[in-house]
Amino acid sequence: MNRAALSEFELIARYLSRPAAAERSDIVVGNGDDCAVLMPSPGHQLAISVDTSVVDIHFPHDAPPAVIGHRALAVALSDLAAMGAKARWCCMALTLPAVDPEWLEAFAEGFRELAARSGCELIGGDVTRGALTIGVTVHGELPAGTALRRCGAREGDLIAVTGYPGRAMEGLARWQRGEREAGHPVLEAYLRPEPRLAAGEALRGLASSAIDVSDGLLADLRHVLKASGVGARLDIESLPLATPLRATLELDEVREQVLNGGDDYELLVTLAASDLAEAQRRLAPLHLPLTPIGRIIEGETIQGIPLRYLERSGWDHFPEIAS
Amino acid sequence: MNRAALSEFELIARYLSRPAAAERSDIVVGNGDDCAVLMPSPGHQLAISVDTSVVDIHFPHDAPPAVIGHRALAVALSDLAAMGAKARWCCMALTLPAVDPEWLEAFAEGFRELAARSGCELIGGDVTRGALTIGVTVHGELPAGTALRRCGAREGDLIAVTGYPGRAMEGLARWQRGEREAGHPVLEAYLRPEPRLAAGEALRGLASSAIDVSDGLLADLRHVLKASGVGARLDIESLPLATPLRATLELDEVREQVLNGGDDYELLVTLAASDLAEAQRRLAPLHLPLTPIGRIIEGETIQGIPLRYLERSGWDHFPEIAS
Repeated sequence: MNRAALSEFELIARYLSRPAAAERSDIVVGNGDDCAVLMPSPGHQLAISVDTSVVDIHFPHDAPPAVIGHRALAVALSDLAAMGAKARWCCMALTLPAVDPEWLEAFAEGFRELAARSGCELIGGDVTRGALTIGVTVHGELPAGTALRRCGAREGDLIAVTGYPGRAMEGLARWQRGEREAGHPVLEAYLRPEPRLAAGEALRGLASSAIDVSDGLLADLRHVLKASGVGARLDIESLPLATPLRATLELDEVREQVLNGGDDYELLVTLAASDLAEAQRRLAPLHLPLTPIGRIIEGETIQGIPLRYLERSGWDHFPEIAS
Repeated sequence: MNRAALSEFELIARYLSRPAAAERSDIVVGNGDDCAVLMPSPGHQLAISVDTSVVDIHFPHDAPPAVIGHRALAVALSDLAAMGAKARWCCMALTLPAVDPEWLEAFAEGFRELAARSGCELIGGDVTRGALTIGVTVHGELPAGTALRRCGAREGDLIAVTGYPGRAMEGLARWQRGEREAGHPVLEAYLRPEPRLAAGEALRGLASSAIDVSDGLLADLRHVLKASGVGARLDIESLPLATPLRATLELDEVREQVLNGGDDYELLVTLAASDLAEAQRRLAPLHLPLTPIGRIIEGETIQGIPLRYLERSGWDHFPEIAS
């Protein structure tokens, strides 16, 4: 089709569908009909989440298109990870200001690479014109009754976090200062967060609650405490401090990033103290540390943290609105 | 909470969640956790579709907010109808330029009314800031193997359409001329299309193919013909002509609207001639006519229609792009 019109339908087919979808027996109908048709796994429940990434709000307009594609899917998959679900299928609602085939190809490649690696096939899409916005709905599965809820934290449980939260906040600051060093671990943490899907699955049956750290460790911890009706005593000395942050920043700044930086997509979990060793053993093959940082206590407060850290709150798109 | 900040989370909780979701045993976890968790029906397949409605592309900015809410869900549900699926759950990715509680309440009411009537519970949402855009992902279920595909049309099948397509195109023209008469059937056809969910379910096991008429009857028929590898001979004298259109327009204009008007969301189906009476009998309780308008033939052409109607094509958001 040389110089022929490239319609919305061809756009979807060309950039958003993967031939691999045809090889999966759970995908009865992929792209190209009114709906995708899927065969759920017997005895499993569905986990569904939707995340919208808007240019210059959720990612910088000058980010590489492959990064934008990766990130839009990663932030959605992170919700499946936080539920302990296995990623299965996703849909993309793509809004584009114009069509740039080179940009689209790189964007799709970033998306497809993570989709393939996560077992999350793209099974539906929609393309419209407007400001660059990527809406991703992800679908996962988990054995019935095993979802990691926010409401399961119990007094006495340990609070633990995977990896090294705080790097993404520093990565964003560096990006905004113009740093573009390819492969820099702190920039990468911001640009290409890795959803902790394998960790979420590994912690199923062990963690009493889980959430992904998207808004900031303290802000997301608050969601867990509120849902569970409990409080927390954190041990500020126990916070995992990423080496690249310690190398360049004051301790106080690093702690601020760990506690209030968003966008890392690590998992924050609670679990019985007696299960910590088993949980760490399960995450060892993933080369992912699980660091205990405090305990669940009675009452809906957070203790053990200087007030200056607590005054900051998580990211909110509509902070100024009064009801 | 008087004059307190209304956060993104509270926005979602206040406008997008329905207490009724708590009463449905298939909704294990509704809004308020990282994911919704759902229990699929044993022996059923999932049908999933995503539709994005953008202001001034898919709906006029001055449409009543309840209409915008209704329409955003209706166009997505229409894809479930075209598959023969029973509507079950939906997610909304809402992008707002600002928060106007009065507008939001009316918008949510339009959405919720159709959701409740369709059995399609809202189980997840996401709110971001930007140009008004509503992304809706709908999930339906159907007994395994019964999906109404686009690829099932066979030579000799009748081609039939529900209701009176063409009214929405005239409704849009009237809206653009400034007509605002509440309850006018032609304006209503454009503003509040009714997804043919009950008809789609009723035609399961009977129709050999189905599609919803969103881009225009001829444009959508072409999708079926292409997917099925067949052609069509239409009988232009058989087209169902809506009385309000016949009353004010020339026959030629009405036919143009029936054949090339979009946005009606009627179902276009193929079926064996011997099944027509049974299909009509099943739709009778819905007060929905099913009008045969032609036959499936060999070869991938459309015959029986003057060329002037065929030269128009369906709606395409990126018509100017060359590859």
